[in-house]
Amino acid sequence: MITYADIQAAQHRLSGQSRHTPLLSSPFLDEIAGRKIFVKPECLQHTGSFKFRGAWSAVSALPEDQRKNGVIAFSSGNHAQGVALAAARHGIPSVIIMPQNAPALKIANTRALGAEVVLYDRATEAREEIGDRLSAERSLTLIKPYDEPMVIAGQGTVGLEIATDLPGDNAEVLVPCGGGGLTSGISIALAQDVPDMLVRPCEPEGFDDTARSLASGRIEQNATPEGSICDAIVTPAPGDITFPIMKENCGSGIVVTDEECLRAMALAFLRLKIVIEPGGATSLAAALFHGDKLTKDTAVCVASGGNVDPAMFARALQTLES
Amino acid sequence: MITYADIQAAQHRLSGQSRHTPLLSSPFLDEIAGRKIFVKPECLQHTGSFKFRGAWSAVSALPEDQRKNGVIAFSSGNHAQGVALAAARHGIPSVIIMPQNAPALKIANTRALGAEVVLYDRATEAREEIGDRLSAERSLTLIKPYDEPMVIAGQGTVGLEIATDLPGDNAEVLVPCGGGGLTSGISIALAQDVPDMLVRPCEPEGFDDTARSLASGRIEQNATPEGSICDAIVTPAPGDITFPIMKENCGSGIVVTDEECLRAMALAFLRLKIVIEPGGATSLAAALFHGDKLTKDTAVCVASGGNVDPAMFARALQTLES
Repeated sequence: MITYADIQAAQHRLSGQSRHTPLLSSPFLDEIAGRKIFVKPECLQHTGSFKFRGAWSAVSALPEDQRKNGVIAFSSGNHAQGVALAAARHGIPSVIIMPQNAPALKIANTRALGAEVVLYDRATEAREEIGDRLSAERSLTLIKPYDEPMVIAGQGTVGLEIATDLPGDNAEVLVPCGGGGLTSGISIALAQDVPDMLVRPCEPEGFDDTARSLASGRIEQNATPEGSICDAIVTPAPGDITFPIMKENCGSGIVVTDEECLRAMALAFLRLKIVIEPGGATSLAAALFHGDKLTKDTAVCVASGGNVDPAMFARALQTLES
Repeated sequence: MITYADIQAAQHRLSGQSRHTPLLSSPFLDEIAGRKIFVKPECLQHTGSFKFRGAWSAVSALPEDQRKNGVIAFSSGNHAQGVALAAARHGIPSVIIMPQNAPALKIANTRALGAEVVLYDRATEAREEIGDRLSAERSLTLIKPYDEPMVIAGQGTVGLEIATDLPGDNAEVLVPCGGGGLTSGISIALAQDVPDMLVRPCEPEGFDDTARSLASGRIEQNATPEGSICDAIVTPAPGDITFPIMKENCGSGIVVTDEECLRAMALAFLRLKIVIEPGGATSLAAALFHGDKLTKDTAVCVASGGNVDPAMFARALQTLES
């Protein structure tokens, strides 16, 4: 059970650590969408994604005696960098378990943020076994990426900022959704502060586990975990903790295509001058290209991250030429 | 004579209109530079550059009787869009005189922001004659791009924000410099608020009129107005109003290469998730690649704009592959 007070407490712990990201807008985007659009650029957050909020929230919530031994996480992406930076700023060790075929840049970035990176072979080793062994040997605390109350509370601070900054309160809040930590956290914050706002999870076509779960009322799986350009937000299924929260608070999910994500990235480049990763652009893609599925005059699109490699970004820019 | 009070008054008029841009940072950039680096992303300002500040300041300072007739500007770039938006938000007409071979996208953008665009043939027509005729016929007020006190006062609000937001006050403030409106405005604000900060103009190689002018003590010209990828900040020479201010307040100029600007753009993409145009990246390029010319532990790089076309941005991204 995560409460509004948990999110307020997380915001207090994050004070002076996370960036309060602004709400950006452009009349050109409003015209395409046919409504007022605001973009909350969590790509400008430390480590390039909202994940730093949840990681800091979880690490800072640990009892001092437990925290000083260090933390451990499984991730090849944004969560890894968030945990590494949160640990480094607390002056504690962090171990990140990554597949040995992860992109060299991501491994290097995670190490540069102060983490010890342990590589494993996905074909022959189970990361959980490695994690259990290291945790036991060194008394490390596992920081899960989304199904963890203090992580959800940290991500919920995005919702507190939206409630503070948005003029008026009758808006749909579109959130890129993987395991549901960000979506569920925001939904708790807004349900209390501005109950007329409606949170809508956004997912890539073929990986719409949350949209289908919300439609059926129970947790549905993705058919495959790989193959989306929106890799940062693809998980096997919504979490056991996050799904009931989303079921209670959120509107139906919106599904967008990879091509629409690339076009949204290009339009964010052109009109807002920010860099969004494909998964982080699902929300803007929903607002720009699926306006028929929205019900309010204003949409707030959380751009959840910007960790995209140059080749993929160049591919997005090519959509401007057509 | 522009005073600190003029800048405060401009900030008051800009309240609720311009974005107070944040200070961004990344440990990866600090490591390259060998010092603490902050980037002030004016690319996130309305219309994608700081120019909106000066345009709004100038338009809002006009007496109501004069303003209602409308304003006129010569520009094919950032100043055009700033003036167009400032006029539109005041509910007054604007006329922007642009060369007929200006990029179609810039013409379309300026029109979409509400301006009447008048095209002229650079080979056979003088834009000043067209401007004089239209101004006389319609009682329009000319908004100059930099040699205009209320424009300089508006740009100076960038300096007030830096003084408010920067922890500590012993920093060099690196500013992309064309005609000198932004540089001189910031220098007035900082000279009053935090006199230990030193403003340094940054320019592209071959178009270093301000650096040479500061060195010689008198206004020097560029040999040619064309041929730099940093076109947004290339002017024939520093202004008659801006140069004496820079001469009194600023340190020596720093000159960077086009290649360094492209690399700085790519690193801002990778580490800050923002889009900077080549001219707007001269400041970050100076901090990253000319640290030997800096004298303080901290550098604030004003990223003055982000209006870069996709092909040029893709070219910048290619520098990450080498």
